[in-house]
Amino acid sequence: MERVGILGAGQLGRMLALAGYPLGLRFRFLDPAPEAPAEQVGERVRAAFDDSNALRAFAHDLTVATYEFENVPLEAVQRLSQWVTVSPNPLALEVGQDRLREKEFFTRMGLPVPPFAPVDSLSDLERALTRIGFPAMLKTRRLGYDGKGQAPLWTQGDVQPAWERLRGQPLLAEQLVRFDAELSILAVRSARGELRYYPLVENRHGGGILRRSEVPAPHGSPTLQRQAEQYARAILEELNYVGVLAIEFFVIGETLLANEMAPRVHNSGHWSIEGAVCSQFENHLRAILDWPLGSTELVAPSVMYNLIGKLPPLEQLLSLPGLHVHLYGKSARPARKLGHVTLVEADAVRRTEVEQRLRQLLLDESA
Amino acid sequence: MERVGILGAGQLGRMLALAGYPLGLRFRFLDPAPEAPAEQVGERVRAAFDDSNALRAFAHDLTVATYEFENVPLEAVQRLSQWVTVSPNPLALEVGQDRLREKEFFTRMGLPVPPFAPVDSLSDLERALTRIGFPAMLKTRRLGYDGKGQAPLWTQGDVQPAWERLRGQPLLAEQLVRFDAELSILAVRSARGELRYYPLVENRHGGGILRRSEVPAPHGSPTLQRQAEQYARAILEELNYVGVLAIEFFVIGETLLANEMAPRVHNSGHWSIEGAVCSQFENHLRAILDWPLGSTELVAPSVMYNLIGKLPPLEQLLSLPGLHVHLYGKSARPARKLGHVTLVEADAVRRTEVEQRLRQLLLDESA
Repeated sequence: MERVGILGAGQLGRMLALAGYPLGLRFRFLDPAPEAPAEQVGERVRAAFDDSNALRAFAHDLTVATYEFENVPLEAVQRLSQWVTVSPNPLALEVGQDRLREKEFFTRMGLPVPPFAPVDSLSDLERALTRIGFPAMLKTRRLGYDGKGQAPLWTQGDVQPAWERLRGQPLLAEQLVRFDAELSILAVRSARGELRYYPLVENRHGGGILRRSEVPAPHGSPTLQRQAEQYARAILEELNYVGVLAIEFFVIGETLLANEMAPRVHNSGHWSIEGAVCSQFENHLRAILDWPLGSTELVAPSVMYNLIGKLPPLEQLLSLPGLHVHLYGKSARPARKLGHVTLVEADAVRRTEVEQRLRQLLLDESA
Repeated sequence: MERVGILGAGQLGRMLALAGYPLGLRFRFLDPAPEAPAEQVGERVRAAFDDSNALRAFAHDLTVATYEFENVPLEAVQRLSQWVTVSPNPLALEVGQDRLREKEFFTRMGLPVPPFAPVDSLSDLERALTRIGFPAMLKTRRLGYDGKGQAPLWTQGDVQPAWERLRGQPLLAEQLVRFDAELSILAVRSARGELRYYPLVENRHGGGILRRSEVPAPHGSPTLQRQAEQYARAILEELNYVGVLAIEFFVIGETLLANEMAPRVHNSGHWSIEGAVCSQFENHLRAILDWPLGSTELVAPSVMYNLIGKLPPLEQLLSLPGLHVHLYGKSARPARKLGHVTLVEADAVRRTEVEQRLRQLLLDESA
């Protein structure tokens, strides 16, 4: 009997477990949060990630361990690695936890990125902006997700307030590129080196939070798909990476600019639960257990919407034909991801029709 | 927060829970068995079904209760109904638990059945066989499933031994019809009376246990589909039934003969997890919670095999392209259902190719 340990017990951990039970797996989570969506579907050790005794208890009898968010303390992963293999290995975390190192790494791997510069002082920032120009984004190097720790710089007047807001931690400035679309690729590599790629996903964000994903990506192309796969492969192999990796890109014409990567299953891959033959969650588990990977082929064109802040009435969601509803068992709170819905539908007319009704429901809710 | 109680914690309960978490549901099971596949994915009360205190504790705070096998004691369901709605209601259980009443009920509802007769003595049996002829089947009226409690009567020489084996309990004899195929229909009715039907499934049994299901049914037709739906509807409405109901048929040309029904999610509907837009498990939950039902449309032609007695090496199953593996977390034992696999594939050539490789794997295992 194989037991998988997961650092973090949020919705990603929950969906990993739901994908893993059919494979005969069991799950244990470590998470200090009072509310943990994943504890409904597995054992949970409630403790801080840096609690050494808790980590040891958590590690007991695990076949393999993984994590569901990239801000898990590196030291926790390193300590845990004494007792059980942790995949992806800490290299990816180290790179991914620091936006500056990440961009430097992308560049080294041959991925174009928007112009950027480290910022440790106001004069650094001023100097960077001379080179980068406006508009730009000032970002913390660490612990940012869902738009947190970012300040846009549209004009010179934004510089001082942005600096005041974010100063005191390592920062970087980056050109705010005018892109045609945001795309992401989900790639997976198993311990034995098998590789698979999902089709490019097109994403729409609002307030820094993913709102909608669509696959196949309207702004995608076979060229861009090939390009994204090459980039993903270079990174996976360089890091000796095992598991699912997400890379987000800006697309400008036929060029991909790397934005960021996440060393885990990713919100822009949730559509794959029903929309791909084998979901990102199942493939992540297959990869870290060194099992053969599953097919990443599309079942049919899919569109996914996040349910954020407040849920529309469940019955209304369920009455939309073909809509797959995923609730995370979390209490409502503004800007919180409470669930997502996916529509998998080959017929474009039907897809648009249902999506319109869905958008109305989501709009009613946010009103 | 809605919590669903399930009498029985086997694989059907497990798959109900796995389908229900994405809808934000939680689960509690009642089952006396030492090993319970569902307890890995929900709370379990371990007690006998007729333990009144346990039933009361089980019922606490449930939104609704259901059962995952038809041999749950009727008294347990009736007692439970004092505290919480149990769906399907006990009527279906009463009918379904007694093969004689079931056949009489089918007849009353207009469903043709093979010739049958109650048997309470050897002379009853002799008399019945004069009318029914050989071959026939002698069956216990109660507690039979997966081919248990049955004895085939091919010639007069089988009569005495069959009688000796099964005597001492209410029996019935039934003509063993020569059929073209075995089909089943999964139908679902919600509390508000909404009705949906899955496409006819073609089933192959071996040793009285379901081995393979295929959908669409090669021996199906629009006429048979319509016929099966009419039969299902008559039964669902007569019993004021809420939930998924399975009816098994023999097909002879363009005629359906009803064999038996199961007032629950059914093995011949497991393909629907990936092969239908909304699975039988999710639809059962939607029905008993009186939520809108989900689409029963086919995603693509599907074939399901049970994994019985012994599991083939998991890695070999996972290496078959597009195969969905479902293990139940049970220990191996001869004739025990340990899991199932489903292949959903629109391309007939690819489907046949993968199925051939799967059959080889299963054959290797049974050798």
